[in-house]
Amino acid sequence: MEVPVRTGPLKRDLVAGLEKGLSVIESFDQERPRLTISEVANRTGLTRAAARRYLLTLNHLGFVSQERKMFALTPKVLRLGQSYMHSARLPRIVEPELHKLAYALKEASSAGVLDGNDVICIAATSAGRVVSHTLQPGTRVAAHCSANGRVLLAAKPQHEIDAWIARQELTSMTPHTITHPERLRIEIARARSLGYACVDQEIEMGLRSLAIPLRNYRGDIVAAMSISVHASRMSMDEIVEHCLPPLLQAQAHLRMLL
Amino acid sequence: MEVPVRTGPLKRDLVAGLEKGLSVIESFDQERPRLTISEVANRTGLTRAAARRYLLTLNHLGFVSQERKMFALTPKVLRLGQSYMHSARLPRIVEPELHKLAYALKEASSAGVLDGNDVICIAATSAGRVVSHTLQPGTRVAAHCSANGRVLLAAKPQHEIDAWIARQELTSMTPHTITHPERLRIEIARARSLGYACVDQEIEMGLRSLAIPLRNYRGDIVAAMSISVHASRMSMDEIVEHCLPPLLQAQAHLRMLL
Repeated sequence: MEVPVRTGPLKRDLVAGLEKGLSVIESFDQERPRLTISEVANRTGLTRAAARRYLLTLNHLGFVSQERKMFALTPKVLRLGQSYMHSARLPRIVEPELHKLAYALKEASSAGVLDGNDVICIAATSAGRVVSHTLQPGTRVAAHCSANGRVLLAAKPQHEIDAWIARQELTSMTPHTITHPERLRIEIARARSLGYACVDQEIEMGLRSLAIPLRNYRGDIVAAMSISVHASRMSMDEIVEHCLPPLLQAQAHLRMLL
Repeated sequence: MEVPVRTGPLKRDLVAGLEKGLSVIESFDQERPRLTISEVANRTGLTRAAARRYLLTLNHLGFVSQERKMFALTPKVLRLGQSYMHSARLPRIVEPELHKLAYALKEASSAGVLDGNDVICIAATSAGRVVSHTLQPGTRVAAHCSANGRVLLAAKPQHEIDAWIARQELTSMTPHTITHPERLRIEIARARSLGYACVDQEIEMGLRSLAIPLRNYRGDIVAAMSISVHASRMSMDEIVEHCLPPLLQAQAHLRMLL
C-alpha cells in the first residue's frame, strides 16, 4: 500500500492550498472539537488570515460548521473516508472474509495496514462483542504494540525494521507494552519465523490479539488480519489453538483474491 | 448540524485548490477505484494539467498511490473521516447509548443526520447481527426511504419538506420503496405526529427499521436513531412493540446530554 519510492515531484507541481486545507481538517480532534480561527492557525502553522480563508472555504463546502467564533467539522467529512472504503480493493475483498471469520469464532476481528508509525484499521467487525474502540475502520494504533503491526513490520527487510525501531518512541500503553527496542526486535523476528504475532494486553488492559499477514497472489504482504479477545475469555495459548487455524484458512483463501 | 444560513463568503476568500482537491478525492468510487489523470480530469471538470497537479500533491501527501498510469486512494484518507469521528460531540455522545440499546435488544442500531438528499450514518453497531452494510459510520442512504431520514425530514417546516420532496428523484430501491411524492409527504407527516418512523424493506429487501428523533436540551432535533431488524425476525408491529420503548428511553437520556 505504500507509495513507491520515487524522486519527489517538483515543487511547482504541488498545490499548496490542498495540503494546508487537509491539515486544517486534521487539526480538529477529541481534545479540541471546536476551534477558533486563531487556534486553527496555531495548530497548522498557518497565518490567521490564511486559516480564516481555509475555514471559510470548508464552511462554504459544508465540511465545517460555524457557530459564532467556533468552527467544528460536520459529518460530511465522513464522505472523504468513505471514498477510500468504497473505492479501495483491499477493504472490499477483506471485509466479507473478516465477517465470516469473526462470526464463526464469535470474536472481534480486524484488518490493517501500516501508515508510518501506526497501523490503520481498514476493516473490522465486533461479532457482537464489545472489545475495544480501536477496532473500527480508520482507527489508528501504534504499530509497535499491535499484533497487526508486528506482522506488518516483520514483512520488511531487517535494515528497515532496525531503522523503523530506531525512529520510534515506543510509548508504553499499558504495563505490558514492550518498550525496549531489542525486545521488540526479537518479537518481530519471532512473528516472521512463526508466521503470526501475539500481543497480550500491550495496547489496552484486557485485550489479547493474534495476527497473521495477508499476502497477494505474488506473495507480497499487503495487510494483516487479527482476532481480538477479552483476556478473561481465553489465555494466549488458547487463542493460538482456537483462532490460528481459521485465520490461516482465511489467509489461504484471500491469497487467491488479493 | 446544518450550516446556518448566511451570506456567502466573498469569492476572494475561498481557496480554490482545496475545493478541487477534495473533489479529486471524491472522484474515486466503487465503480472506478483506479483512475488515470485523464479520468480524474473528466470526473472533476479539471483540466488534465490541473488534475495531474492535484494527484501529484495527494500522492506526495500519501493520500493517493500511483502504479504506472493508475492512481488509487490509500488508507490514509480514512484519517480525514476519523477527524470528524474523534472531534464531533454528536457521535461521541450517541455511540455509548447506541451500544447499550443494541446489546439490550440484540439488534443492529444506527444514528444519522441529514446531508442534502441523504442520511449519513454517524454511529452504528451491528450487535453481532449481519443486517446491512448500510449501517456503518460514513455510509449514506437516500433519506426518502430511510427511517432515520423520515424523522429528520419531519423536523423541518412543511414548506421546506415540500421543497425537498419536489427536488428529489425518489428512486425506487426495492418494490416497497415509496416513490410517490404525496405518499411520502403523508409518511413524513405521520412520523411527525407519531414521533417515530417505520420503514419496511424500502432500502433493501429484508431490512425493517424503526427510528426516533434525537433532540438536544433546547428541543432541536439534531440526529435520528434507529433499530434495524431482519424481516424474518419480527413483523413491523412487533418491532414497534419491542423496540420503541427502549428507543424512547435512549431519546430521553440523550436529551440531557446533547
